[in-house]
Amino acid sequence: MSINSVSIAGTGNVALHLGCALRDTGIQIDKVYGRDISKAKQLAEILGAEPVSDIHQLKSDLVLICVKDDAIQEISQQLNADIAVCHTSGSIPMEALNKHGKHGVFYPLQTFSSERNVSIENVPLLIEASDRAFLTDLAELAARISENVQVASSEERKQIHLAAVYVNNFTNHLIDTAKELMDERGLDWKLILPLLKETVAKLEDLDPDEAQTGPAKRNDNKTITEHLSMLPEDEKELYKLISQRISAKFSKQDDQL
Amino acid sequence: MSINSVSIAGTGNVALHLGCALRDTGIQIDKVYGRDISKAKQLAEILGAEPVSDIHQLKSDLVLICVKDDAIQEISQQLNADIAVCHTSGSIPMEALNKHGKHGVFYPLQTFSSERNVSIENVPLLIEASDRAFLTDLAELAARISENVQVASSEERKQIHLAAVYVNNFTNHLIDTAKELMDERGLDWKLILPLLKETVAKLEDLDPDEAQTGPAKRNDNKTITEHLSMLPEDEKELYKLISQRISAKFSKQDDQL
Repeated sequence: MSINSVSIAGTGNVALHLGCALRDTGIQIDKVYGRDISKAKQLAEILGAEPVSDIHQLKSDLVLICVKDDAIQEISQQLNADIAVCHTSGSIPMEALNKHGKHGVFYPLQTFSSERNVSIENVPLLIEASDRAFLTDLAELAARISENVQVASSEERKQIHLAAVYVNNFTNHLIDTAKELMDERGLDWKLILPLLKETVAKLEDLDPDEAQTGPAKRNDNKTITEHLSMLPEDEKELYKLISQRISAKFSKQDDQL
Repeated sequence: MSINSVSIAGTGNVALHLGCALRDTGIQIDKVYGRDISKAKQLAEILGAEPVSDIHQLKSDLVLICVKDDAIQEISQQLNADIAVCHTSGSIPMEALNKHGKHGVFYPLQTFSSERNVSIENVPLLIEASDRAFLTDLAELAARISENVQVASSEERKQIHLAAVYVNNFTNHLIDTAKELMDERGLDWKLILPLLKETVAKLEDLDPDEAQTGPAKRNDNKTITEHLSMLPEDEKELYKLISQRISAKFSKQDDQL
């Protein structure tokens, strides 16, 4: 058997982006369930699907559960055990769905917002399944929309999700902090965007420890002290901590030479 | 007067990239000075210039001082006062060069490595000058190589440089940490690169506080606690601090509603 039709529980950004990508490859999107029926209607219309407010009406070759982490198990419990289901979360173990004979994970390693189109073909899709046949089905489905399909265990996925928090949530917070420093002086924060782009582009060629530069790496205490004097009180702790970590990492490397 | 010839003190990445960009627009690069004459020869050959090991031989319409921050003043002191000079540093005030009648700053807001070509035309060039006529000359020179030329005072430049440390050095360190988390489990860190690219691409359309997502923003303490349990002891402090900061920022915003 292969998967030709999908229903979706959830109406958020993951539901939207995965739903569109699957539909575009010819997968039939049967139904969209949302507790908020107006949202379900909106998404169903985009996907050419039927909106439902009664979860028991969901039935397809696969039901994709695209809801918040702590609602996944609840949704699963309400669905019949003979329905094949996947959730799309980075951190929830597959076994949360083990009520179902066929269950698995279909996790797009990406950040989605409703405002932006993300081309899914470059997004790593991490899959996991309760049995080998279902894994093959999921791999086929995933390969329709992404060029980067990988099998990952729940443990591996959890670790990748943790790394993703650093790479997305935490770096975004640092950029937000940099923006505040620019705003404070009435400077246009967009001035630092080319630098940010190159910071990331560099990592195509270099590992991040090779790409590291700056006062902390050079142990340039004069600049570090001056920067600290420029920062508001409640910003100093983060600056100090990250500088210490960079400095420690590279002095350790020097020791090893 | 406008600037038609440039000599360069320094042989590092800024000297290389600025030198090439200026030469490509028809500026004559006269001489390259380096304490290490073999490096001066190497760069001079690339730029079609003459390598010199005696700094007193430097003379052109402009001498660009592209050396480490703490060597800038020393270089300036050795050059005749009637030579027009600029340094290329983010954090050193212009007045470090005030021995010279015409002095200024020519600061490319970018990270350079010898391994990578950066197209300078997108790099913001922040300039500052001792007098209005010299500022016009520098603006002309800068506009030859960059589409983004801005006048910035020493104070403003220092603040921008501080923000640049967050956006480049600090984010790079977080990515390095994410790589270590991946390495620990034998996972390919390149898997998280598409996420990183989108994290940055999003900021073309959204401000970083609008783009913020993740467990800390959602106050998802279950996930945060689990992540902390997965981290080695010496990683917990940074994870906690950044999560607290994100969480505080957004609970403050909620309070304002």
